[in-house]
Amino acid sequence: MSTITLEKLSALNAAYARCIDNDQLEQWPAFFQEKCLYLITTADNHDAGMPAGMVYADTRGMLQDRIVAMREANIYEEQRYRHIIGIPFVVEHVDTLILVETPFIVMRIMRGGETTVFATGRYLDRIVVAEDGGLQFAERIVVCDSTNIDTLLVIPL
Amino acid sequence: MSTITLEKLSALNAAYARCIDNDQLEQWPAFFQEKCLYLITTADNHDAGMPAGMVYADTRGMLQDRIVAMREANIYEEQRYRHIIGIPFVVEHVDTLILVETPFIVMRIMRGGETTVFATGRYLDRIVVAEDGGLQFAERIVVCDSTNIDTLLVIPL
Amino acid sequence: MSTITLEKLSALNAAYARCIDNDQLEQWPAFFQEKCLYLITTADNHDAGMPAGMVYADTRGMLQDRIVAMREANIYEEQRYRHIIGIPFVVEHVDTLILVETPFIVMRIMRGGETTVFATGRYLDRIVVAEDGGLQFAERIVVCDSTNIDTLLVIPL
Repeated sequence: MSTITLEKLSALNAAYARCIDNDQLEQWPAFFQEKCLYLITTADNHDAGMPAGMVYADTRGMLQDRIVAMREANIYEEQRYRHIIGIPFVVEHVDTLILVETPFIVMRIMRGGETTVFATGRYLDRIVVAEDGGLQFAERIVVCDSTNIDTLLVIPL
Repeated sequence: MSTITLEKLSALNAAYARCIDNDQLEQWPAFFQEKCLYLITTADNHDAGMPAGMVYADTRGMLQDRIVAMREANIYEEQRYRHIIGIPFVVEHVDTLILVETPFIVMRIMRGGETTVFATGRYLDRIVVAEDGGLQFAERIVVCDSTNIDTLLVIPL
Repeated sequence: MSTITLEKLSALNAAYARCIDNDQLEQWPAFFQEKCLYLITTADNHDAGMPAGMVYADTRGMLQDRIVAMREANIYEEQRYRHIIGIPFVVEHVDTLILVETPFIVMRIMRGGETTVFATGRYLDRIVVAEDGGLQFAERIVVCDSTNIDTLLVIPL
């Protein structure tokens, strides 16, 4: 029984991007399974097989902590983000598990109005059907194309 | 009977973007219902509940007038636009009415060749099934992320 | 029998973009039929009906030669590309042949980390169902919005 379609994957990505761009970050950890992997790294690191990244979390609790810390630091209010997520490429699909690779562009809009390309890259996802029938990330590895990623990276990508 | 699918929404947005980017603007008002709402505003204004925007029209005739004025001003020829419209997020779906939120990026390409990010933001749409079975906008509110939108805004977003 | 859906077109574009952005260029010619047309041109040239372009190939062998030459020139390693391909607009659909127009943005990420908009434009495609049931390009005309395209254009768009 194959319950994951390209349409459902796109709907998942649409909801994910909207959650971040609309500043509903408290809902962001719910896109992940309890035990998960969320990693932001660079293409150079990833190609070299280096597991280290700029951001690492392997439980939903760590993702929640991250949002709490971010709210306290109060940096987020100064800018907006806009994700454009491309078409998912299905690498492997076995029953209720799917490995997907999806390109993205994230723009940053500063309070003063200036808009710049914040990051481009691809998501390497391991997506599963959750108990309620919806899709969740077991893994989302964010591979940024540039080595020049803002080291004060606060928002999720 | 639910006649609106994610695929049809995407096809509508593809046709809408192509109409503008291919400079077939005389056909643009036909994407809207006779009585409609088309508004371009900023995220700051929108979040503050301010109904005012940089562009406002509430009939198809007003949209047509806008295109006529634009052609007379003859500014449009100096540049090209390129819309990339993201995946629609369905906020609410009742029979033949759907409320959708969709991110976009618009690039501007000047005659001299320079390309810049013209606008990023999201469409807040109220889409209905028209008499001929096709989809039409009852409302398209264009919420731009930046406050720095070109005040001489001539083309539709 | 209509075997081409919007979902299949999007999957084709996802695979095409991934092939280039992941530097698997040796597999790129396989997206085209043996006898094909691949052309990179500008909107100005295209609108003027000029068939000339910056890149022209009409067999799969020519596409393969192009990749070999590019590898020997060894320029590609210095940068990454990131395609975001928009929603296909179906211009005409007859049985197993489809004419489609699809917008794109390509970002270029230099080794030093700098990210710029490399090209925007639209693909004018003539897509057919290949013998194995998959989709292939009989024609892909890449119409760039800007006249300022890098004349040393090495990678495929």
